[in-house]
Amino acid sequence: MSSEGFFGKPLSAVNLGLKSFHESLRAQGAASIHVEWKPPAASADLIAKLERPEVEAANAEALKRLCDANPVLAGVERAGDVVPGLVGKLLLHAGPPIGWERMCGPVRGAVLGAVLLEGWAQTLEDAESMLAAGEVMLEPCHHHGAVGPMAGVLSPSMWVWVVHNDVHGNDAYCSLNEGLGKVLRFGANSPDVLARLAWMRDELGPALKKAVAARPHISVRALTAQALLMGDECHNRNVAATTLLLKELLPGLLRARIGKGVVRKAAEFISSNPHFYLNLSMAACKCAADTILGLANSTVLSAMARNGTEIGIRVAGLGDRWFTAPAGMPKGLYFAGFSASDSNPDLGDSTISEVAGVGAFAMASAPAIVQFIGGAPSDAIAHTRRMYEICLGRHPHFKIPVLDFAGTPVAVDVRRVVETGVTPIINTGIAHRLPGVGQIGAGILDAPSEMFHQALAAMAG
Amino acid sequence: MSSEGFFGKPLSAVNLGLKSFHESLRAQGAASIHVEWKPPAASADLIAKLERPEVEAANAEALKRLCDANPVLAGVERAGDVVPGLVGKLLLHAGPPIGWERMCGPVRGAVLGAVLLEGWAQTLEDAESMLAAGEVMLEPCHHHGAVGPMAGVLSPSMWVWVVHNDVHGNDAYCSLNEGLGKVLRFGANSPDVLARLAWMRDELGPALKKAVAARPHISVRALTAQALLMGDECHNRNVAATTLLLKELLPGLLRARIGKGVVRKAAEFISSNPHFYLNLSMAACKCAADTILGLANSTVLSAMARNGTEIGIRVAGLGDRWFTAPAGMPKGLYFAGFSASDSNPDLGDSTISEVAGVGAFAMASAPAIVQFIGGAPSDAIAHTRRMYEICLGRHPHFKIPVLDFAGTPVAVDVRRVVETGVTPIINTGIAHRLPGVGQIGAGILDAPSEMFHQALAAMAG
Repeated sequence: MSSEGFFGKPLSAVNLGLKSFHESLRAQGAASIHVEWKPPAASADLIAKLERPEVEAANAEALKRLCDANPVLAGVERAGDVVPGLVGKLLLHAGPPIGWERMCGPVRGAVLGAVLLEGWAQTLEDAESMLAAGEVMLEPCHHHGAVGPMAGVLSPSMWVWVVHNDVHGNDAYCSLNEGLGKVLRFGANSPDVLARLAWMRDELGPALKKAVAARPHISVRALTAQALLMGDECHNRNVAATTLLLKELLPGLLRARIGKGVVRKAAEFISSNPHFYLNLSMAACKCAADTILGLANSTVLSAMARNGTEIGIRVAGLGDRWFTAPAGMPKGLYFAGFSASDSNPDLGDSTISEVAGVGAFAMASAPAIVQFIGGAPSDAIAHTRRMYEICLGRHPHFKIPVLDFAGTPVAVDVRRVVETGVTPIINTGIAHRLPGVGQIGAGILDAPSEMFHQALAAMAG
Repeated sequence: MSSEGFFGKPLSAVNLGLKSFHESLRAQGAASIHVEWKPPAASADLIAKLERPEVEAANAEALKRLCDANPVLAGVERAGDVVPGLVGKLLLHAGPPIGWERMCGPVRGAVLGAVLLEGWAQTLEDAESMLAAGEVMLEPCHHHGAVGPMAGVLSPSMWVWVVHNDVHGNDAYCSLNEGLGKVLRFGANSPDVLARLAWMRDELGPALKKAVAARPHISVRALTAQALLMGDECHNRNVAATTLLLKELLPGLLRARIGKGVVRKAAEFISSNPHFYLNLSMAACKCAADTILGLANSTVLSAMARNGTEIGIRVAGLGDRWFTAPAGMPKGLYFAGFSASDSNPDLGDSTISEVAGVGAFAMASAPAIVQFIGGAPSDAIAHTRRMYEICLGRHPHFKIPVLDFAGTPVAVDVRRVVETGVTPIINTGIAHRLPGVGQIGAGILDAPSEMFHQALAAMAG
């Protein structure tokens, strides 16, 4: 971003903590005031321990990998056929590991629905007995190269987007989006919800598989980049991205051997759901984030996910270890008839968006999102600006027009989070706290800070 | 718009001229400094003559009609079957009236191409002889309830969008968009250009007719409103609007009796042209603007159009009379291999967009447009802000997220144009000045002021 502000006024910064950041701003000719603020002594010691050349080098590599990753749509497949280790009576769920007994209402609702969808039980009561008896295994999506929005429940017969990173060679997976309101991922499991999932399994999934096979290698990165120029942030606003995706899928849908009635139903289903792109975007973000999983010495955030009970993060240099805290409560707007007292704590793997430099981090691109999550357009800009404070770079492919085409903030450095007290901002849907109800709104929240302190201690220790 | 500015700073205004405007700002609690600036004495006298209750009342009615108009897509038809008076060897063109001898290069190129398309001549030489001999009639689109982008040439066998105003009952027409580059409306007329037009006549037009018949009453106003939330201004940036339109047309295309191959070709043609929506938007804008044509005592702009030689305006209270000035030269960005010295003066009926409160007037919605026309995102915002000075209101349906969802400026008051010296800003494509070449860029310019003075004198006289 240039040092000229939005209305031609020069930008100025107040810098807290790391003096090098202030010096870099001054070197670029921007006004900056350095304030000698220091985090609590214990944290300051940890940060000091991690101000090492190996960490800087590893973080530079992490930033490079996150930005270079080029996720392309490689296929649409039955989860049981492609997701590593998804065998037997195993269901995947969002967030860090959690057992049935501690699962929140909407995740329980989704798990029960998935058991019925798979035919492992015929009634919700039977399904519940199976789970209570430990007859169904439950593991995080993140442990299987996958991510899932909200409850994030993935069962073998569901279909997934297969996203392949053309640069680093890794794959990632995410289910197909069901729509808003009364849907499995928000905890609903009534017959109409299951009937929709059955149609997706029997008709939509196979049709999309043929369509993508007929026109492979759609660049998800290019779709996201274009959508950011069109008012989306690709987490809670996917209006443009969904229409762009439909446009990309159409030639394949129309070329492949698919009946015109099926094409019409598929196109109408996609058209009627402005969040259809979310799941594909999440797979792409996971694909990028996985490139830094286990990158020694790096203090960059590699995953952030919630199971509705806890939120967890992973840091690149610490591999697959989770650091958790109680899940927060989003502030937002509620659908008619619902209020904050109905809402479940923060839920879902969709925060992989923010890890990869989109979602709430790109909110300046999406001022119209405030109609969905509350606040004013100026808040959306302020959120993005604040995230630059804790990120190592700006995404070279994801540009924000209103900030003079600055790249989105990307690569959260846990040192900076602890140092500044600024935690990642999260856009999210809001689920009813009881199983079986569904989505009741959408909102925003800051990630809790404790887990970043824990992760920093582990990195320094 | 609230009196709070974009970054939470209060807005303040410097008011020139009309004290009532300053008083109104003060009454709303906004800071405003009134400067005793007056336009030249002769103009000031004219303005004073028009500060009458009848004019205020007529202008209030004009604003109301422009905002209330609800253009819906009523059909796609052969121009010769529906455009009033389009019979015999008649071609319609953009802008105010002009004869063959004074027509600029690109309009000549388009007229010649249309003569070949209609089969009235077999070679460009023969076509030119016919025109020189006066064997082909030439009249403005605007005289037939139609509008056309750039050269705006409309011939009987071309297909048109038929837009119906559900509130005031009037219809308007515009051709189907051919794409960018080497296309008829930018003056190209080679065999490939004519082959594309023949395909549009024989296959695309009839398919769209069936598609729209299968799913009629698509609200063009709603599409434009949504596109403004997605980074378009619906004149020179139609990326979002085109995908939204495709989404609306798809169910009809897939439901009607149209071969899958034709559907695929139509969908690919629309998908590959990010300006496909422009022509439909123009018909909708014409539909709104025509509601004030001949509205006695109103000083509101009812049309603005260029034929590449002259630009002309109409004012509501003066019916179908044109006030003209030499066409200006746009400043912009040029396609590779071209420069300003190749460009034709400003051309086309597409300035009906600005008359109806979109296009350059809504540019604050479309910061990414600067990649196409030049300038910085902050310029885009400044242009919209400046247009509020000469407009009577804010469009209740067309909102700009980044300006806290303020409505776009709408209803240009010719009194204010003369008083402030601010003329309407125009977004435009740039045609090569020679016939047969095509589009070479896109840019921006201010309408010349003389014709507004002439119109004001006619209103006062």
